[in-house]
Amino acid sequence: MRGKLILVGAGLSVDLITLRGVKRILEADIVYVDSYTSITLGDLRSFLTTQTGKEAVFLSRKDIEEKYFETIIKPALEGLKVVLVVPGNPLDATTHVALLSEASRRGIDFEVVPAPGIIPNALTMSGLMIYKMGKVVTLTYPKSGIISEYPYDVIKDNDLRNLHTPLLTEIDIEKGVKMQVREAIEILLQLESMRREGVLSESRKAVAVSGLSGSEQRICFGTLKDLTELPDHEGPHTLVITSPKMHFLEEEVAQIISRKYCQLT
Amino acid sequence: MRGKLILVGAGLSVDLITLRGVKRILEADIVYVDSYTSITLGDLRSFLTTQTGKEAVFLSRKDIEEKYFETIIKPALEGLKVVLVVPGNPLDATTHVALLSEASRRGIDFEVVPAPGIIPNALTMSGLMIYKMGKVVTLTYPKSGIISEYPYDVIKDNDLRNLHTPLLTEIDIEKGVKMQVREAIEILLQLESMRREGVLSESRKAVAVSGLSGSEQRICFGTLKDLTELPDHEGPHTLVITSPKMHFLEEEVAQIISRKYCQLT
Repeated sequence: MRGKLILVGAGLSVDLITLRGVKRILEADIVYVDSYTSITLGDLRSFLTTQTGKEAVFLSRKDIEEKYFETIIKPALEGLKVVLVVPGNPLDATTHVALLSEASRRGIDFEVVPAPGIIPNALTMSGLMIYKMGKVVTLTYPKSGIISEYPYDVIKDNDLRNLHTPLLTEIDIEKGVKMQVREAIEILLQLESMRREGVLSESRKAVAVSGLSGSEQRICFGTLKDLTELPDHEGPHTLVITSPKMHFLEEEVAQIISRKYCQLT
Repeated sequence: MRGKLILVGAGLSVDLITLRGVKRILEADIVYVDSYTSITLGDLRSFLTTQTGKEAVFLSRKDIEEKYFETIIKPALEGLKVVLVVPGNPLDATTHVALLSEASRRGIDFEVVPAPGIIPNALTMSGLMIYKMGKVVTLTYPKSGIISEYPYDVIKDNDLRNLHTPLLTEIDIEKGVKMQVREAIEILLQLESMRREGVLSESRKAVAVSGLSGSEQRICFGTLKDLTELPDHEGPHTLVITSPKMHFLEEEVAQIISRKYCQLT
């Protein structure tokens, strides 16, 4: 009998995993954790041990992207139930979609258990409306001195339609890379000084979200100038450039949330 | 001492509630359920009784939108912990955002516990990429013979950017309204025959999602013509008009998922 590949979302922090997710972990023969996209891995390891009694194996990016045959496919072909726990919502990342395709091609059954991810929660938990969510884009550090202008184009385009732009920021735990809000804003303002199309300025409003839904969560609504003052935070970080015209209820609730969750110290 | 208002997402089906959500229900003095936006209420009622031992009060739209002072605000002002369980992800709906603002204005503390909602899962669980998600829009029945053209404009605009359009369909359990995929497609094709801008046609591809993540979930990828043949389904329904040019991995995985979850009988 063939086994099964089950992707289980771990949610934004460990107790935001779903009941179904926990059940699938309990039923699993092998439990892996994708360990290169998240920050709260220490918590996740202790959660899995104490709450499910399962000894999880933490996989590196290489284990999942290159050695997936040995780690994931082979045990499933041999009849085992293989669970891969993914921080956030499992299919938000392309690698995990490709895994499903690989499993299916080899006749392995699969299942996906969703969990709250950064999309759309960076917006909704900040008081912004899901109907006003524009295209998502990732902001990366300059590579060999070159800054990608793509995020600028996406913001400009979302602006034209009065939509919010959720900017995910570069993160690679294995390489020790984790972009801070301040750095993200520096890159954005640098893009403005290159393009000079009046899309971004220090007075532009945004919501800076860090460690969403964790015990140290920070949600700050303000101008880009205000937000550059924010101290570093364990993150991960998302910066939502709010739409040029916010709905009055959005602005009101973003301020309420910010008063509650923005520790400026 | 003042109480607290806690919005708890019930997720897309009852075992997709999070551990934190269950904990908040267990700690609550009063448990309400928003009963007008979801279909799986029977399951939710029995889940709450058997899994948490709490007797939940099911609120109508009127109870939440008009009588919120008596039902929700007053008990919280008197010091009680009031939990409102919301199918899906609690802040995806404007009414619940307005409740937070109301609570805050009266000095009541609040908390939001997210859960998997239809956005972005209608896309990601169908194999579509979150980076290609365009603006969300709700498709409604004609009112007094007038069809809203707004969804047509949104699809046209998302098309120009090669983005997917998630179409939520009209649903009001209290009024017995639940748009089927077939009806949604009829409305779209009617809009095309009114506008004639070549945005939609019977050969346009889409993903029809019904009862996502429940035991009867149906996910069908095909042309609008194919999808009109789908029998009625308990729903709720979401129709994603896929982007004009799908990424090869999206197309591959959408087909895999459709083979697994599209029961055409």
